[in-house]
Amino acid sequence: MKNKPVPTTSIARSDSKQIFIREADLVEELIGEMSFTEMFLFHLTGKKPPAGHVKVLDTVLVTLMEHGLTPSAIATRLIYHSAPEALQSAVAAGLLGVGSTFIGTMEGCAKMIDEMLNAPEGVEARARAIAERHHQAKLPLHGFGHPHHKPDDPRTPKMFSVAKAQSVPGRHIEALLTLSRQVDAVYGRHITINATGASAALLGEIGIPLPIMRGVAVISRSAGLVGHILEESQRPAAAFMWETVDHSVPYAAS
Amino acid sequence: MKNKPVPTTSIARSDSKQIFIREADLVEELIGEMSFTEMFLFHLTGKKPPAGHVKVLDTVLVTLMEHGLTPSAIATRLIYHSAPEALQSAVAAGLLGVGSTFIGTMEGCAKMIDEMLNAPEGVEARARAIAERHHQAKLPLHGFGHPHHKPDDPRTPKMFSVAKAQSVPGRHIEALLTLSRQVDAVYGRHITINATGASAALLGEIGIPLPIMRGVAVISRSAGLVGHILEESQRPAAAFMWETVDHSVPYAAS
Amino acid sequence: MKNKPVPTTSIARSDSKQIFIREADLVEELIGEMSFTEMFLFHLTGKKPPAGHVKVLDTVLVTLMEHGLTPSAIATRLIYHSAPEALQSAVAAGLLGVGSTFIGTMEGCAKMIDEMLNAPEGVEARARAIAERHHQAKLPLHGFGHPHHKPDDPRTPKMFSVAKAQSVPGRHIEALLTLSRQVDAVYGRHITINATGASAALLGEIGIPLPIMRGVAVISRSAGLVGHILEESQRPAAAFMWETVDHSVPYAAS
Amino acid sequence: MKNKPVPTTSIARSDSKQIFIREADLVEELIGEMSFTEMFLFHLTGKKPPAGHVKVLDTVLVTLMEHGLTPSAIATRLIYHSAPEALQSAVAAGLLGVGSTFIGTMEGCAKMIDEMLNAPEGVEARARAIAERHHQAKLPLHGFGHPHHKPDDPRTPKMFSVAKAQSVPGRHIEALLTLSRQVDAVYGRHITINATGASAALLGEIGIPLPIMRGVAVISRSAGLVGHILEESQRPAAAFMWETVDHSVPYAAS
Repeated sequence: MKNKPVPTTSIARSDSKQIFIREADLVEELIGEMSFTEMFLFHLTGKKPPAGHVKVLDTVLVTLMEHGLTPSAIATRLIYHSAPEALQSAVAAGLLGVGSTFIGTMEGCAKMIDEMLNAPEGVEARARAIAERHHQAKLPLHGFGHPHHKPDDPRTPKMFSVAKAQSVPGRHIEALLTLSRQVDAVYGRHITINATGASAALLGEIGIPLPIMRGVAVISRSAGLVGHILEESQRPAAAFMWETVDHSVPYAAS
Repeated sequence: MKNKPVPTTSIARSDSKQIFIREADLVEELIGEMSFTEMFLFHLTGKKPPAGHVKVLDTVLVTLMEHGLTPSAIATRLIYHSAPEALQSAVAAGLLGVGSTFIGTMEGCAKMIDEMLNAPEGVEARARAIAERHHQAKLPLHGFGHPHHKPDDPRTPKMFSVAKAQSVPGRHIEALLTLSRQVDAVYGRHITINATGASAALLGEIGIPLPIMRGVAVISRSAGLVGHILEESQRPAAAFMWETVDHSVPYAAS
Repeated sequence: MKNKPVPTTSIARSDSKQIFIREADLVEELIGEMSFTEMFLFHLTGKKPPAGHVKVLDTVLVTLMEHGLTPSAIATRLIYHSAPEALQSAVAAGLLGVGSTFIGTMEGCAKMIDEMLNAPEGVEARARAIAERHHQAKLPLHGFGHPHHKPDDPRTPKMFSVAKAQSVPGRHIEALLTLSRQVDAVYGRHITINATGASAALLGEIGIPLPIMRGVAVISRSAGLVGHILEESQRPAAAFMWETVDHSVPYAAS
Repeated sequence: MKNKPVPTTSIARSDSKQIFIREADLVEELIGEMSFTEMFLFHLTGKKPPAGHVKVLDTVLVTLMEHGLTPSAIATRLIYHSAPEALQSAVAAGLLGVGSTFIGTMEGCAKMIDEMLNAPEGVEARARAIAERHHQAKLPLHGFGHPHHKPDDPRTPKMFSVAKAQSVPGRHIEALLTLSRQVDAVYGRHITINATGASAALLGEIGIPLPIMRGVAVISRSAGLVGHILEESQRPAAAFMWETVDHSVPYAAS
């Protein structure tokens, strides 16, 4: 450990009378003065966020909160049934499902947007190249397509219109729309930008760093999962889900 | 499984063109129309929440989001260091610390408030009885006392003043203040209402059911933990924390 | 932090050439010399366990490993489907279900056994009192009864016979059997000792402390859940489970 | 869901009188007849494992169980301190650290071993190519090197010697040793095969599929973490660890 610099934290400090979060007095400047969404952005940046950023983040948080009986929601309800004394475990179990299969595609989409925005040859040309690269190699197009919402994910245009009405630059959204046009041209059919892809663009607009983009989904989903626990506590369904699965997947000797 | 009624869910439904959350059209009525906090209350109740309820919930969410290098935050940073490819795991690990030692006391405080509000003999008399019961049996007074913030937790009066400025009844807050006076009288010294206790009163004011009160802390803390992951990704400290603990807790043969 | 004694650990220490676990040289004395089960008991006690203790612990570990598509196994498979890059998350999600509903009853049963063994009036009299107390107050009888295995849990007698063949005192098993006879008499019908109850007796025989009894189930179940992940990786069923649940729990406006 | 084949499970089935795990009668054939390690291999394969396979798996399970105050162990102790009522949460929190930084290298090493064993040009030539490829591109050599155990990880030769004494083919071990010689030659210095790399070779010898190799570490570590919880329950150190970290990582405004 010798000679290594000691790391520091800039998040919080307190004494007996005061608590500071990123140099703001929690009691005087934050409690009662900021919404949850503002406070989260303040936590990340140390600056009071512009109203447009708050609105854009709320758009993503509201969009991703709830999708009904998803794998995460089912896992949460089964674990709540098994350990009702530890609500936090049930939420944690569901959040562990915010992985590569569903939400991780947000990061893949954000990487393509960043690639376009940083391309010396311009967004349009790079969008074409990305579409062709994915088409030829049959790579998954992160942020595109939806198993149920066809031909278009209804959330995407609303998310874009809310964001455009705010004071965000719009470069990430435009890049993704450009990519979408090139995808349709290269693939010879329309593939919708899904809500996860749209979220990548919106979070890019307000400067959420790629390594924690997934964290926005984690926060949003935590609220949805608490809602499932409330319903489960009032109208238990987990035992029925368990029996249903057990009866629906028959035993067969291998 | 025969003859048992099939459970239902009232949370969400969708088809190829529309998504409904609790009978509201997600695209038309929720995205861009509600903040995160409104949406969470709507998720729980199916009704657009009054502005005062949103403000009170934001007060609790902002208060509980961040406390610096807590056990949860340290656990999150250590797990992020160990599995940076799975941000959701790091958040989940920290959330598993929202248990009985710290946040669970919110529920104990809420139960005392409910007991006072439902007492036939009135709040004052029951507050006296509760204080005496805890004093005599040396029971922990959930929602009271703080190891660092003495004589008073600075968050509590601000939380109460924000709530009182809203259109909430104020009965839960008044009951807790009554209990506080009786506690001081019975114990012969001042014991502060802490922020967790104040949170119990505020959440009671807006009708958050006791079984999911802890969930509000889980949601709030998930945002704080994502903030810690951002700092860890930019200025790694987990390896230093690990080495520091390893060097500070010496080996001793048992 | 001043003046508080510094805590120590007796578990492990190492230098560049050697690793010691509880004073044993890992390379010379443990690797290749102990089974997993022996090593776990050595980890807990610092002493090479008697063969009978190993056999009794293996009995519990083998019994609890697998129960088919339980809530834990379903949760693990759903999370593995959602985040296949993080196998550890899927196992963790399932383990979070080792809570009060299923395995926590082991601790309740162990407490009744301890109560009988420590009763001044003797095991038989206290067993009668415990049975009457539970019957009159309609309390759950931890470790007794099974929804599917009627009239008797087939695992229990085998677990007892394996344990009795080893050099364990047998006092915990005898106490539980005494309680079982009193339960049948007081309730006026036969209620089986289930495998969780039998596990409590066996773990008591070999001195596993009550606060970590549940941990034995966690270890055993972790192996079972890894087996479910192997099957899921070879013959995916999680997406089908998800769809089945989604179709089986209909939406109904509240 | 129409027209898709219904998935099946081959793991377990039961009726009121019998429980079968992979076609074996749990009571008659498994409880009291198999050790934990045998049972886990039986769970994976449906066949009674050869004694040599059990010994090799025990070698890996014993080796990986405990490493003192690792990030996982610290996380487990902090979460146990925060939620002592939910031991399973504390173990789960620690297991979430079995990710890419530490144990995930086992899979990278196993992939190199598989690459050598499947190379048309032979193990030696491919080992040379792998070493050169990693050296030129400065890629991490999974399974090689150790920050503390220099020049050699003392566990590795013991693990190999135990495995070689069993009836395992030895091809994976030989391939890894061949790679080690080429690594030393290409890098111009000795880099030890570490215990994680050796584990990859041993698990390959007994046919543990790569997608669940990490699961063996999860199982082993779960036992170690339960041991840490026992020590924490008897000699609490988590609060001290927390305070130590909080004092050692100073606040600095960003």
